[in-house]
Amino acid sequence: MLHKSAVIKILGMVSALVSLTMLLPLIAALIYGEKAQAIAFAEVALPVMLIGAAAYRLTPPIKEYDIRMREGFFIVGSAWIVLSAIGAVPFMITGEISKFADAFFEIASGFTTTGSTILTNIEAVSKSMLFWRSFTHWLGGMGILVLTIAILPMLGIGGQRIMRAETTGPTMDKVSFTINDSAKNLYIVYFALTVVEVALLMLGGLSLYDALVHSFGTMGTGGFSSYNASIGAYESGYVQMVIAVFMLLAGVNFNLHYMTVKGGFRQAIKDTELRVYLAIIGTSTAFIMVMLLIHGFASGPWDAFKQSFFQVNSIITTTGYATADFDLWPLPTKILLVLLMLIGGCASSTGGGIKVIRAIILFKIIKREVNKKLHPTAVMPIKIAGKQMAESTISAVSGFVFLYLIIIAAGSFIVSFEAPDFTTALTTVIACVSNIGPGLNAVGPTCNFAFYSGGIKVLLSIFMIAGRLEVFTIFLLFTPSFWDPNK
Amino acid sequence: MLHKSAVIKILGMVSALVSLTMLLPLIAALIYGEKAQAIAFAEVALPVMLIGAAAYRLTPPIKEYDIRMREGFFIVGSAWIVLSAIGAVPFMITGEISKFADAFFEIASGFTTTGSTILTNIEAVSKSMLFWRSFTHWLGGMGILVLTIAILPMLGIGGQRIMRAETTGPTMDKVSFTINDSAKNLYIVYFALTVVEVALLMLGGLSLYDALVHSFGTMGTGGFSSYNASIGAYESGYVQMVIAVFMLLAGVNFNLHYMTVKGGFRQAIKDTELRVYLAIIGTSTAFIMVMLLIHGFASGPWDAFKQSFFQVNSIITTTGYATADFDLWPLPTKILLVLLMLIGGCASSTGGGIKVIRAIILFKIIKREVNKKLHPTAVMPIKIAGKQMAESTISAVSGFVFLYLIIIAAGSFIVSFEAPDFTTALTTVIACVSNIGPGLNAVGPTCNFAFYSGGIKVLLSIFMIAGRLEVFTIFLLFTPSFWDPNK
Repeated sequence: MLHKSAVIKILGMVSALVSLTMLLPLIAALIYGEKAQAIAFAEVALPVMLIGAAAYRLTPPIKEYDIRMREGFFIVGSAWIVLSAIGAVPFMITGEISKFADAFFEIASGFTTTGSTILTNIEAVSKSMLFWRSFTHWLGGMGILVLTIAILPMLGIGGQRIMRAETTGPTMDKVSFTINDSAKNLYIVYFALTVVEVALLMLGGLSLYDALVHSFGTMGTGGFSSYNASIGAYESGYVQMVIAVFMLLAGVNFNLHYMTVKGGFRQAIKDTELRVYLAIIGTSTAFIMVMLLIHGFASGPWDAFKQSFFQVNSIITTTGYATADFDLWPLPTKILLVLLMLIGGCASSTGGGIKVIRAIILFKIIKREVNKKLHPTAVMPIKIAGKQMAESTISAVSGFVFLYLIIIAAGSFIVSFEAPDFTTALTTVIACVSNIGPGLNAVGPTCNFAFYSGGIKVLLSIFMIAGRLEVFTIFLLFTPSFWDPNK
Repeated sequence: MLHKSAVIKILGMVSALVSLTMLLPLIAALIYGEKAQAIAFAEVALPVMLIGAAAYRLTPPIKEYDIRMREGFFIVGSAWIVLSAIGAVPFMITGEISKFADAFFEIASGFTTTGSTILTNIEAVSKSMLFWRSFTHWLGGMGILVLTIAILPMLGIGGQRIMRAETTGPTMDKVSFTINDSAKNLYIVYFALTVVEVALLMLGGLSLYDALVHSFGTMGTGGFSSYNASIGAYESGYVQMVIAVFMLLAGVNFNLHYMTVKGGFRQAIKDTELRVYLAIIGTSTAFIMVMLLIHGFASGPWDAFKQSFFQVNSIITTTGYATADFDLWPLPTKILLVLLMLIGGCASSTGGGIKVIRAIILFKIIKREVNKKLHPTAVMPIKIAGKQMAESTISAVSGFVFLYLIIIAAGSFIVSFEAPDFTTALTTVIACVSNIGPGLNAVGPTCNFAFYSGGIKVLLSIFMIAGRLEVFTIFLLFTPSFWDPNK
C-alpha cells in the first residue's frame, strides 16, 4: 500500500511551490493592467499555497523508508497531473479557456514542454495568461532536469542510467563531476542559458516580455509562442537563428554544458550521443535545405538554410516552434521531420522523444543481431564510447521503445475516432507522446488541437505526461500489480 | 569468401526446378489457345532448364563444409531474386508487361506471396499469364514452408527457433513429432488443403481455373486474383467464406495442422500463438462488424460479418484479397487493419509480417520491464506456455522487430519521393515488407503500384523479399562484413 501521508506531504510541498511561481504572471497581470487575470492568479495561488503548506506541515515527518519505489512513482506521476490541473484553473476563472479539458490540455502541454495548443487565436488571449502558459514550459523543463538527474535514476528509469554509463569514468573524473551535486549545477546552467537568450533576443529588438516568453519556450523545449504565426512572426533572421541555436543547446545533455563550463569542452565534444545528435541535425538540415531550394520554398540558399536549420532544431529537440508551415513542404521532408520527432533530444536535456542515446543503442542491437547470424556462438557485448553496457540496460531500452511505439499505435487507433485522416491521427499522438507540439495535416503548425473532444484531450494530456516521464512512470500507475497490496 | 561452385550448383538446381513448374502455365496456354504465351513459357523454361541442369551437373559435388552460414544466406537471398527475374521474362516476351522493373515487381510479389500488382487492368491479361502469376504464390508458399522448417533454423533465424521453443516438449512428443521429417509432412498438409479448397470453390460454382487461381492465392497467403474486383467479383457468400476460412488456416502454424491430422487437435488448440491469433481475429472481426453497421457500410449483421471476417483474415494472414474497398471504411477500422498488417500470421505459416508469436514476446518484454521498475533486482525470465525462453531468443526478437520497423521508416522516406501522401508512402512499404498486397490511399485495394518508377519498384521488390525472408537474410547481403574475406 502507498504511504499516504508521505505522498500528501510531498504533493503539498510541490503544489505550494508552484503556486508561488504564479506570482510572476500575477505581477505581469498588474503591469499590463489585466485586473481580472491578476485576481484569477491570486484566487488560485493563495488557497493552493495554504492547503499545500498545511498538507506539508500537518503530515508526520518522512522517515527513511517511507518513500519506496511505489511512492516515488506515484508522486512523480500524480504531481504532473495535479500541477496541470491547478495551473489550468486561472484560465477557467477568466473564461479565456472555458472548459476544464481544454485548460488542462493547455497547461499539461505547458508543464510537459509539449507546446500543443487548443487555442484558435493565441493573440486574443491576455498577456499575463500567455506569460503563465509559457512559464509552465520553463518550470517543466526545470522539473525534467531534476527528474532525470535526481529522481528517475533512484527509481531505476532508463534515461539517466544510460547517460551515466556513457559519461562516467575517466571523462567525468577529469572535471571532478559527481551526480549528487549536479542537479544544482544544471539549474545554474539552465538559468544562465535562459538569461543569455533573453539578452540576445532583446538585442534583436524583442521586448522583455516577448524575449521571456520565447526563451521559456526555447529552454524548456516547449514551443508556446505569444503569436499565431509562432516564430514566423519575426522576420529577423537574427532572432530566428538565436532561437534555433538555443533550441539546439536545450536538446543537449545538460551535464555536458556543465562540463564545458568547468573547462571540459574537449571532453564534452567527444560524447557519442552529442556527436550523433549534431550529425543528425547537420545532415537533416542539408537535406531539407536542398529540398526547399529544388521545390521553390526558399528565395535562396540563406533563406533555405534559415528555414531548414530552424525547423530541424525545433523538431528534434521537440520544441515545436515554426517559422514556416512545414506541412506544405515536400513529402520526404515531412517524413524526415516525423522521424526526428520520434528520435528527440539527448538524455538529460529538456527535450522529449525516444532520445538520441536510445536510438544509438537500437542500431547497435540490430547490428549485433545481424552479426550473430554469421557468428551464432560469439558473445558480443554492446559498447558505447568503449564501455560495455549491461544487458539489463539493453533490455530496458528495448522495453522502453516497444512501449513507446505501442502507445503511439494504440493512441492513434483511439484518436482516429475523431481525427479526419490517418496522418493526423498518427502525428497527433506522436506530437503529444514525444512532447513536440504540432504534427501534420489537421494538427499541422498552422492548426491546433481544439477540434478534439474533451475525452480525447484528457487522454492526449496523459500521453504528454507519459512521454515526459519516460513512459513507464505513468504506465505503471495503470497496472493492477502497482495497486496490489501483496506486492 | 563464398564457395562459388556450391552456390552455383544449388542455384542451378533451383532454377531448373522452377522452370519445370512453368509447364503448368504452358499447358494452360495450350488449353486456352494462347499461342504466344505458350511459346513465351517454352522460350524461358527450356534454356533455364538446360543452363540450370548444366550448372548443377558441371560443378563439383558439395562436400560437408561447403555450405556454411554465409553460403546459406547468399543462396536463400539470391534464389528469390533470381527466380523472380526468371519468372518475369514470359511477361516481357508477350509484351503483357513490357518493362523489366514492372515484370520483376509482379513476379517478386508472386513468389513472396505479397500480391501487390502493377497491373491496371488485370482482366486484360491472358489466362495463362494470370495462372502463372498466381501459381508463383503457391510455389512461394511452399518455399516459405521449407525455408522456415528446414533452412532458416540451420541459419539461426528467429522464427522457427521460437516456434520450436513453443511446440517442442511434452506437447509435440505425444504425436511423435520430429523436425526432420516435418518438411515433407507440411507439404502434404499444404497440398491437401489446396485440393480441398479447390473442390469447395468448385462446389460454389467456380471453374477449375478460377478455383485454382484463388486457392493458390489463398494457401500461399498471396492475394493475386484473376479479377479487377478481387474476391468482390463473387457475390456468393459461400465462396467468400470458403476463401476467408482457408486464409485463416493458411495463417496457422502448419505444424499444428499436421498435429491435428495426427490426432493431436486437443494439443494443437492449446498452442499459445494459435489462441492469441484466433483472439485477435475474433475481436477485430467484432469491432469492424460494429463499425460497418454503425456507419452504413453493411446491409445487415450477416453482411457486416461477411465483409469484416473476410477482410480481417485477409489482412492478418497478409493475403490481401478484398471483397470491399476498405479504404473507404471509417478511419479506426483502417488503422486496425494496418496494425494487423504489422502483426501478420503465425510462425511456420505461409503468412508474412512480424508474426503473432513475436508480438506476444514484445508484450512480455514490456511487461517484464514494467515489473522491473517496481522490483529492480528480481530475475524475471520470459515464459511461453510455461517454458522459459532463452535471453538470446528474446534479443533476437527485439533485433528483428527494430530492423523491421527501421526498414519501414527508411523505406517510407525513400518511397515518399514518389508517393502522393504520407499514408500512401507508409502503407506502400508496410504492404510490401509484410507481404500484404494493397495498402491505403493511392495503393488501396482498388488501386495498384503502377505509378511508381522502375527504381522504386525494384526497391519494393527487395523489400518484399526481405520481409519474406525474415529481414535479416537479405539485409546481411548488404552489409560489408558479409563480404569481408577475413571474417
